[in-house]
Amino acid sequence: MEKLPEITVNRLSIYRRYVKSLLKKGKPLVTSEKLGKKMHFKPSQIRRDLSYIGQFGERGKGYNVKKLFQGLDKTLGLDRKWQVALVGAGNLGRALSAYPGFRQHGFKISVIFDNSPTKIGKTWLGVEIRDIKQIPKVIKERKIKIAIIAVPYFSAQQAADILVHAGVKAILNFAPYKLAVPEGLKLRNIDLSTELQSLSCFLAK
Amino acid sequence: MEKLPEITVNRLSIYRRYVKSLLKKGKPLVTSEKLGKKMHFKPSQIRRDLSYIGQFGERGKGYNVKKLFQGLDKTLGLDRKWQVALVGAGNLGRALSAYPGFRQHGFKISVIFDNSPTKIGKTWLGVEIRDIKQIPKVIKERKIKIAIIAVPYFSAQQAADILVHAGVKAILNFAPYKLAVPEGLKLRNIDLSTELQSLSCFLAK
Repeated sequence: MEKLPEITVNRLSIYRRYVKSLLKKGKPLVTSEKLGKKMHFKPSQIRRDLSYIGQFGERGKGYNVKKLFQGLDKTLGLDRKWQVALVGAGNLGRALSAYPGFRQHGFKISVIFDNSPTKIGKTWLGVEIRDIKQIPKVIKERKIKIAIIAVPYFSAQQAADILVHAGVKAILNFAPYKLAVPEGLKLRNIDLSTELQSLSCFLAK
Repeated sequence: MEKLPEITVNRLSIYRRYVKSLLKKGKPLVTSEKLGKKMHFKPSQIRRDLSYIGQFGERGKGYNVKKLFQGLDKTLGLDRKWQVALVGAGNLGRALSAYPGFRQHGFKISVIFDNSPTKIGKTWLGVEIRDIKQIPKVIKERKIKIAIIAVPYFSAQQAADILVHAGVKAILNFAPYKLAVPEGLKLRNIDLSTELQSLSCFLAK
């Protein structure tokens, strides 16, 4: 399969959510026009995106909802469960560990790492907090491929280096720091404060 | 001033963080080479970005750190305090209301709205939870321009409509829904599950 551009993946993710609701309602078919109207995308855009990932259409009738959902799920890697390691048990880490949306989509934070002696050994919602020194051991043993970094910016690169060395292949980084990562690692950055700053920058004009 | 592209604003936000640390250490000057090395950007990129927002250089010596910080702060709208309304007092809303990074950057969540009778009237970290029916009144009275939407996707458009009508000019949307908003409103979307899906999509190949 071709590598999908990130922007396409983001749209597929949105399509999937709506198609799931159709599946739940027992709708057998849906047209690109209906999908477009409901999600504010152009039908031509939707047809192009979906043509990348497979053939789900029944000529003149629309897409087969069940097949379409399965195709989207498979493309997005959601037809399986993913274990996720969370590094950083501060306020943001706590918030992320309690966020129900991850588990709903097949992502389970199965271990949390921190360097604070007052946190190591505790559990949050049943998930143990372990010493960051154990990252290599735990990541390798459990074959964890996805990690979330939620540490202060000055510790972010160190955390990333340890994770990469331990075998992590994809990182969601919440630390406000531009991480240097090797080729072939998938990195996504979310900086909540920067997001608000882009709003205030707009309003400040 | 020209309208800055979003990607530039994001970089300015990163520069600001590092320049702030230099200011705290009492460094009077910094070169674009030093900035580039520390933040993994090309010095030419930094010089171009900073030339958009003002003149902070001293010929042959580098940038004046204090002036540079003030310029970045002003451009990013961080030389003032911003009141922010949070709509949605669920798990994500709770997490966001406890996130210290917002306040550190001059953003104060000063009111929370929800439609649940069990939540209305309570306070979270000193911030009152009010009935969503009071959005128009409260937003207008307090002249709030920035809102965060953290409601389920099926309520997101309604929340946005009410906020826009009440006078909000910038929205940070965490609901997994493509909002329709009027021209001139600044919208930023963060979908935490979609971010993880872009990682699993990469790993699924």
